Amino acid sequence: MATDMVWTIARVIMGVLAVGLVAAAAGAADPLPSWNDGAAKKAIVEFVARVTTEGSPDFVPAAERIAVFDNDGTLWSEQPIYFQLAFTLDRIKALAPQHPEWKEKEPFASLLKGDLKGVLSGGEPAVFEILMAAHAGMTTEEFAKIVRDWIATARHPKTGRSYTEMVYRPMLELLAYLRQCGFKTFIVSGGGIEFMRPWAEKVYGIPPEQVVGSSIKTKYELRDGRPVLVRLPEMDFYDEKAGKPSGIHSRIGRRPIMAFGNSDGDHQMLQWTAAGVGGRFMGLIHHTDAEREWAYDRASSIGRLDKALDEAQARGWTVVSMKDDWKRIFAFDATAR
Amino acid sequence: MATDMVWTIARVIMGVLAVGLVAAAAGAADPLPSWNDGAAKKAIVEFVARVTTEGSPDFVPAAERIAVFDNDGTLWSEQPIYFQLAFTLDRIKALAPQHPEWKEKEPFASLLKGDLKGVLSGGEPAVFEILMAAHAGMTTEEFAKIVRDWIATARHPKTGRSYTEMVYRPMLELLAYLRQCGFKTFIVSGGGIEFMRPWAEKVYGIPPEQVVGSSIKTKYELRDGRPVLVRLPEMDFYDEKAGKPSGIHSRIGRRPIMAFGNSDGDHQMLQWTAAGVGGRFMGLIHHTDAEREWAYDRASSIGRLDKALDEAQARGWTVVSMKDDWKRIFAFDATAR
Repeated sequence: MATDMVWTIARVIMGVLAVGLVAAAAGAADPLPSWNDGAAKKAIVEFVARVTTEGSPDFVPAAERIAVFDNDGTLWSEQPIYFQLAFTLDRIKALAPQHPEWKEKEPFASLLKGDLKGVLSGGEPAVFEILMAAHAGMTTEEFAKIVRDWIATARHPKTGRSYTEMVYRPMLELLAYLRQCGFKTFIVSGGGIEFMRPWAEKVYGIPPEQVVGSSIKTKYELRDGRPVLVRLPEMDFYDEKAGKPSGIHSRIGRRPIMAFGNSDGDHQMLQWTAAGVGGRFMGLIHHTDAEREWAYDRASSIGRLDKALDEAQARGWTVVSMKDDWKRIFAFDATAR
Repeated sequence: MATDMVWTIARVIMGVLAVGLVAAAAGAADPLPSWNDGAAKKAIVEFVARVTTEGSPDFVPAAERIAVFDNDGTLWSEQPIYFQLAFTLDRIKALAPQHPEWKEKEPFASLLKGDLKGVLSGGEPAVFEILMAAHAGMTTEEFAKIVRDWIATARHPKTGRSYTEMVYRPMLELLAYLRQCGFKTFIVSGGGIEFMRPWAEKVYGIPPEQVVGSSIKTKYELRDGRPVLVRLPEMDFYDEKAGKPSGIHSRIGRRPIMAFGNSDGDHQMLQWTAAGVGGRFMGLIHHTDAEREWAYDRASSIGRLDKALDEAQARGWTVVSMKDDWKRIFAFDATAR
């Protein structure tokens, strides 16, 4: 039998199998068990059915089923400080013995005394200097190892859990459900792309090539004949606010049909998604649960959600209330509500 | 049955099916019929078998089977000028009526008189000005349409064929064969990412999210409430020479196990691929066929192949001679040799 024909037959078999499985998944078991039966869950399931049902006017071929997710506050927590900032502070402390001059030199002196306000008084340049001291100067392989070591050992200051336990179980279910239904799931985060990739595949099932984030420049060098990429203290791309549509366009090259965010940093990504032709789904995770997680929106310095919430309400985008829509938030939550 | 279990069983069935098919593909029919039986073809087939055979010491899980291909001179021709330069010249001519001032203004005046030498006498700034006049100032959607219209109508000056007919049939077979064997195929080109994406999926089977290339910056704007990305006359990323490993790292985030190029612009990409742990394949397309295509290497201004050829010979990378290794070059070649 010709190879082409073998493959054609195989594709048909796999296609039939996949369609049957999606039906089985939808019918036989709840794909989103940590979601309460409410408007948000209903909207998600109905949207997925519309775009995956052949013959439906909103049917979208699998190759175009791009779903994008912010990370901080959308897939995992971002309080009391962005987790990448916690990593940064830990990294500076770990490096301090090699930099005795930091004791006298701002913004490091304030940071090492635990005086975050003192750091912030230096404005953006001070924050940038600290970020670069923690993130640049090493090879990409060395940095990946630093991140892996940190994520394996660091603990969240409030829960005492590892940071990767602070991911939202309902969102893990949603990611898996979408992939079962032929979607390609991407992270589109203001966080550092190389801070996320070392663990995103294991934790979210999202491979490195589907992680979009902020980045610094790298420089190719031969060291003793061996090529390395050295991380430079220079921004390459800032994947936040109006940068997110640019990042999506340059890294993915297709407009998403589904986007989830939780803050005004995701506003333009949601607008960009909404402006496409055909069925679209725009979702906002609303932090409404002070007891099980945190409650914050319009007045928060971290994850401020204001203009995007207005537009969501005006346009009927889906707003997910963590308190009402989620039975469990974290996998370690003892009881479901 | 629980959804998880349904999916686990399905994955096992699909896995068995896929392994059987790869074996069938390898055994039942020649996956590379346009390649002559020689050292290059043998090296490719043996490498693919090594990395896809479970239990082999060089086995690579499917998720890590990343193969990267340069475009100009590797997947399609690049003579007598890079095809994107032909696009640029056509675009400037099409825009000229809206720019009467170009008649007197260099480098446009020389270009419109067909005096390419005059253009080049202005050096890099002149070339950059022309490139930006052709590539920037419109929205990303408008630019994609301009490219689609051009690629559908423009004809190669020597063959009279459309540019997308000038792709190498043996390389199309190789791309398809690799994908059948679980590889993810990427383009990593010095050419413009938005010049390739509008047709790369149809022509090469490579989706937009697997195209890496040079890019200019874009700016997010609301026009009458509708979001657009405007292309700015400012370089974002130059994906050539030492830029290619950076591009691979930032866009793909995994080191390729297979890389094909044809010029010194691909040298660092091949070095970066070679430096990984485990089985690797580095290939160079050597333009040796003046009759059916073009013959050029060390002395060529376009697609100069010199240092990379030295390293390939020193390290035993695979050098594909178009004249000797390919039965047909283009699909339109009347006879195979």
